[in-house]
Amino acid sequence: MKQKISELIKSDAALTEAALGKYLSIGDPRIPVIFDAMRYSVLNGGKRVRPFLAIEFCRLAGGRAEDVLPFACGLEFIHSYSLVHDDLPCMDNDDLRRGKPTTHKQFGYANALLAGDALLTYAFETAVSGDNPAGQKAEAVASLSRNAGAMGMCGGQQIDLYAETHKIDFDELRYLHSLKTGALISCSCELGCIAAGLEKEHPLRRAALEYAAAVGVTFQIIDDILDVVSDEKTLGKPIGSDAEQGKTTYLSFMTIDEARSRARELTDKAVAAIKPFDKSEALCDFAEYLCARDR
Amino acid sequence: MKQKISELIKSDAALTEAALGKYLSIGDPRIPVIFDAMRYSVLNGGKRVRPFLAIEFCRLAGGRAEDVLPFACGLEFIHSYSLVHDDLPCMDNDDLRRGKPTTHKQFGYANALLAGDALLTYAFETAVSGDNPAGQKAEAVASLSRNAGAMGMCGGQQIDLYAETHKIDFDELRYLHSLKTGALISCSCELGCIAAGLEKEHPLRRAALEYAAAVGVTFQIIDDILDVVSDEKTLGKPIGSDAEQGKTTYLSFMTIDEARSRARELTDKAVAAIKPFDKSEALCDFAEYLCARDR
Repeated sequence: MKQKISELIKSDAALTEAALGKYLSIGDPRIPVIFDAMRYSVLNGGKRVRPFLAIEFCRLAGGRAEDVLPFACGLEFIHSYSLVHDDLPCMDNDDLRRGKPTTHKQFGYANALLAGDALLTYAFETAVSGDNPAGQKAEAVASLSRNAGAMGMCGGQQIDLYAETHKIDFDELRYLHSLKTGALISCSCELGCIAAGLEKEHPLRRAALEYAAAVGVTFQIIDDILDVVSDEKTLGKPIGSDAEQGKTTYLSFMTIDEARSRARELTDKAVAAIKPFDKSEALCDFAEYLCARDR
Repeated sequence: MKQKISELIKSDAALTEAALGKYLSIGDPRIPVIFDAMRYSVLNGGKRVRPFLAIEFCRLAGGRAEDVLPFACGLEFIHSYSLVHDDLPCMDNDDLRRGKPTTHKQFGYANALLAGDALLTYAFETAVSGDNPAGQKAEAVASLSRNAGAMGMCGGQQIDLYAETHKIDFDELRYLHSLKTGALISCSCELGCIAAGLEKEHPLRRAALEYAAAVGVTFQIIDDILDVVSDEKTLGKPIGSDAEQGKTTYLSFMTIDEARSRARELTDKAVAAIKPFDKSEALCDFAEYLCARDR
């Protein structure tokens, strides 16, 4: 199984990569820097987890990958801009991402700010640029903006900032995660359903959101565990950074074994939500893959 | 005439203000700061020039003000976010806007960055939140994102950054303006036409873009002149700041009289573009008003 799902992840990522590259083939010789900074920020070897979910839910719902690519790439631009702004000196002040200089280290502070703004804007331009029916486009924009905004990802980042100087409890931590990382994961699954033409009340759309919620939390729990038990070589980034920064994580409230068993329960829940639907094997395997990942 | 147009500006601004306030009546007690920072950045007594143009073009094209308000408010959120990010220390580093502390002075650097991101995102959520047909919503999102992005406003800001350290010629200055301020003004007029249901090829839509281009440049020329000839009390901000900062302006390439006569010609052009259309008096008067303004 593990072999097969990793191959599907690779082939979907290749589809996404080609589409991202095509959308980012823009420029104007009279405007310096910004297009290069946008490409640098997006085309950095990301895992493309969110586009994978969008593509596979679109397929599961009877659509084709190309139907959801404008939405999936829009979503990936939003994910990319959030990393660019998150790395800025006034936020996390990170110098490296995936072993390369962060966008502001490479292009300067103001240019990175602008490139992030331009990517967020371009996400919406991309989402409405395809051949999808207008109703789908409007619905995709509504989902993207709701999940990325003050009640979604930006709200999560805001709680995260607050948590740097205030102690937060377990409920607050879970809410932080549901916004900061969970919202875009929900959005991915929803966009797949939208691009396949599923109505809001369709049982698969409801199942997609259940799956997304469970998978999103699992992703976060495993992240927190790996920061403690992995090694720098496997993980590709320094370990122990959460503890060093005094960050509140799942492991502030439970042991590693308890966290692992929670991830296991959530993965079962994710699988149970979509298993009744025909051809859901790939997404079931993906949930297992996320739970078992070591980097 | 002057009396009448200033009253119309006021009553349209009141419509806009009410709608902005309604859209910004959002919040979540579990998320700190961000909603207050968004409101602070938008509800600051702005002149609402862009919503005015959207509303009046919508009316001229046979629509109602309420049809365009979701688009016009979305546009105003984009304008507001651009000021928040432009004022940040890494950009213009301004402490005051309209006599009040800028958003980052009031809420801190990271919170202002996030509030700007959230406003840009909320612009698109707002644009698709109304009762407009889905085709109009998709077209509005396309216009907003194209005009606000790397090929529009963000691109103009990028050239502006470049111009801080490089000498630019007159063509480059004009291109900078057409993107940095011109793009959102064009967008305003276009959104009015979209909300009234005009097809892309409709003569009034083409006239709206001609009007917008002429009015946008006039606005900029008058800005440059007022920075030299006005006084701080009338203008409401320090004068002479362009020269102090070594900024390239229209007056780097011509005398004040030449600039005034260029603004006059452009205003005639703007008026000529829309005069053939029934009930275009308000927008003709507005072009004259912008040309004659002293603040």
